[in-house]
Amino acid sequence: MNHMNIGILVQPFGQHPASWLHPDAVMGGEVNFKHYSWIAQKAEQGLFDFFFIADAPGTRMGNIHAFKRFPSYMAQFEPMTLLSGLAAVTEKLGLAATVSSSYFEPYNLARQFASLDHLSGGRAAWNIVTSTIPSLSLNFGREKPEDHSVRYRRAREFLEVVFGLWDSWDDDAFVRDVESVTYFDPNKLHTLNHRGEFFSVAGPLNVPRAPQGRPVIIQAGGSEPGREMAAETAEVVFTQEREFEAAKAFRADIHSRMARLGRSPSELKTIASIFTVIGRTEDEAQEKFQFLQSRIHPDVGREMLSIDLGNVDLSQVPLDGPIPPSLLPSDTNRGKTYLHSVKVLADKGLTLRQIYEIYSPARGGLVFVGTAAQAAHMMGDWFTGGAADGFMLTAGTLPTELNTFVDQVVPELQKRGLFRTAYEGNTLRDHLGLARPVSRYA
Amino acid sequence: MNHMNIGILVQPFGQHPASWLHPDAVMGGEVNFKHYSWIAQKAEQGLFDFFFIADAPGTRMGNIHAFKRFPSYMAQFEPMTLLSGLAAVTEKLGLAATVSSSYFEPYNLARQFASLDHLSGGRAAWNIVTSTIPSLSLNFGREKPEDHSVRYRRAREFLEVVFGLWDSWDDDAFVRDVESVTYFDPNKLHTLNHRGEFFSVAGPLNVPRAPQGRPVIIQAGGSEPGREMAAETAEVVFTQEREFEAAKAFRADIHSRMARLGRSPSELKTIASIFTVIGRTEDEAQEKFQFLQSRIHPDVGREMLSIDLGNVDLSQVPLDGPIPPSLLPSDTNRGKTYLHSVKVLADKGLTLRQIYEIYSPARGGLVFVGTAAQAAHMMGDWFTGGAADGFMLTAGTLPTELNTFVDQVVPELQKRGLFRTAYEGNTLRDHLGLARPVSRYA
Repeated sequence: MNHMNIGILVQPFGQHPASWLHPDAVMGGEVNFKHYSWIAQKAEQGLFDFFFIADAPGTRMGNIHAFKRFPSYMAQFEPMTLLSGLAAVTEKLGLAATVSSSYFEPYNLARQFASLDHLSGGRAAWNIVTSTIPSLSLNFGREKPEDHSVRYRRAREFLEVVFGLWDSWDDDAFVRDVESVTYFDPNKLHTLNHRGEFFSVAGPLNVPRAPQGRPVIIQAGGSEPGREMAAETAEVVFTQEREFEAAKAFRADIHSRMARLGRSPSELKTIASIFTVIGRTEDEAQEKFQFLQSRIHPDVGREMLSIDLGNVDLSQVPLDGPIPPSLLPSDTNRGKTYLHSVKVLADKGLTLRQIYEIYSPARGGLVFVGTAAQAAHMMGDWFTGGAADGFMLTAGTLPTELNTFVDQVVPELQKRGLFRTAYEGNTLRDHLGLARPVSRYA
Repeated sequence: MNHMNIGILVQPFGQHPASWLHPDAVMGGEVNFKHYSWIAQKAEQGLFDFFFIADAPGTRMGNIHAFKRFPSYMAQFEPMTLLSGLAAVTEKLGLAATVSSSYFEPYNLARQFASLDHLSGGRAAWNIVTSTIPSLSLNFGREKPEDHSVRYRRAREFLEVVFGLWDSWDDDAFVRDVESVTYFDPNKLHTLNHRGEFFSVAGPLNVPRAPQGRPVIIQAGGSEPGREMAAETAEVVFTQEREFEAAKAFRADIHSRMARLGRSPSELKTIASIFTVIGRTEDEAQEKFQFLQSRIHPDVGREMLSIDLGNVDLSQVPLDGPIPPSLLPSDTNRGKTYLHSVKVLADKGLTLRQIYEIYSPARGGLVFVGTAAQAAHMMGDWFTGGAADGFMLTAGTLPTELNTFVDQVVPELQKRGLFRTAYEGNTLRDHLGLARPVSRYA
């Protein structure tokens, strides 16, 4: 497998906070299954590896008068149901979603992902996250999220339970022999009987072993325990680095952690987020981008920074002044990657408006504005230079920028030998070149 | 709406314990999405109201050497993912599933059902059950299920929370006004802030109000608290009565409870389970039925009775002797309807084999073996005589008996004016003639 992997992060209108204000936006797209089907089918036409839904089990909480202007993650499809529907209207595309290990029973999660893997013929992937948002815990009878270290300890045990449940049935457990009236061989059914610090789960799982052995495991954590967990168990890791050298260093760091743990670098794909606005010319691309940038409402820009700094009150900071250092926290129990990204910009002495204009289109991740040939060139440099094994598109507007990418950038990548010209296999593991895990009981 | 409603209970091979041994069985059907799609599409061709999946979050536990001969509920699709897939390959068919209120977070359940309702354009239904099976609680960190009364108190509060979350967004909350940069009106978003005996859930739900206002609520409890809860909140109630008079009395009892609570009988449909084997002649039907009956393995028959008596050890009871009264419990913390059905048969002095031959095809429910005209006649008598508003098929073999029913019985029912000749609406509520609930905030 000597080409890059490509996925798409799908939000109803696109990643940009002003995407719904674009004339191409599909109003009501947040619960329009046909809209999502078009996106998934276009991504499949473009031979993408996967379709990805980020998720949290709750609305965002904070300044509702900002959120009403930026409706992402306020009201939309739930991922497991959406991906299951999309499994029926696609053939090859990987189907990935975030599900928090903080607020789901491991038995229910193991079941739903195994079932999705069967429904889709081996195309499921799970982005395991630990939840950091205080308002979410209030939807689940808890006063606040757990501390960073407890969260990761709990997540590790959660994974251990889910992995164990996924091996409940051997691949060849179902003999289906009418003669002897034997549908399955009881010796090939295993009871987990897990008892740990956080969970007590007997099993076995009531879903046969998944076509992929288990769904592909994704991690997105940039923090120290997040990196360590990715090195231990992830098969795809998302990175938000916006500079080549930083991305290369991140990938090398994960690889060296894997080496220490006895894993080969080929067992994990580093996928860099890339926000794209593509034009026939650089000017056209810039014009499209500036249209979106000009429509970021100041309430939205301010709120995004406030949240990603860890709910810091920025209401008194003038739009055209800097963020006072006293308002920049040194650490957070929330996502450490986002905090870091905002602080890097603030440390440069930029104004609040300048910071959110740089930060908000891709939440601190890589932004690319240019022609298809330039995009292919840049992506090729990252790929061949060891900064990423592939990319996850966070399109400015959907489906418009996805269409542009598939129709214009994909052929450029193919011409350079950087991307597949046909799917070579059927499962997401096939696409990513990842081995099918052997059962612990095999 | 002056015709009956029809649903189908779908298990991979059919309801009969020997269904997988039938030459028509689709081997591997338990995780074959195409197989389920054919069934759903055939039911839709037959203008059925709904497709129903019974479910429990765990394998059955007990005598594995019986279960290996009767693989139902051991390993198959998980319902929310399966129904979401089926939503994409059907247009009108209602999509119903059991989800236990005992082992699911109300926030997650409310989200997934609301999302399914959006995906399907208003076709979701939830059969709320409380779990009675000890082995299930071990998958969720608990030593044993709660007592019957606690379970129902918890289920009531669970419903209260879920109903509240489903009203989080007003129907007209999404104004999507580009001019004023306002996607939704914050005044039309409601935070539940529920704090009760069992649950503490803040909300709001991150899914817009469902096309049906809320999914259709189904109840199957035959016990006293089950009936009371059905009368309070259900819109469909399943009954397992096998005699006309008993079914009529059950329906009348639910209606009188509803009257006491200020609900009209038209707000709830009583749906009787009916196990059908249809032949061109009575002899052909009997021959098909006897083929299945002759293949009930004694281990399976014995185990089914043992479980439904509340895990009574029947291993020492001879197949051709009666069940000693000392082995018949007076009450159970499990499903009271099943216990009652078995005891009625045992009290007649039948042998173990005779009891399981009568009981096991439909787990004590109504069994019909005959021609299409006879089936239509019998169903018409129940419907016009007030014993049921409709029926849920528990086909002997799938898809064979469903095909037979749709091709032969449905035309007979239509000829008699007992069943629709076309779908008149789009949502499951439309099919059932149920009003769309108004939001508590309207």
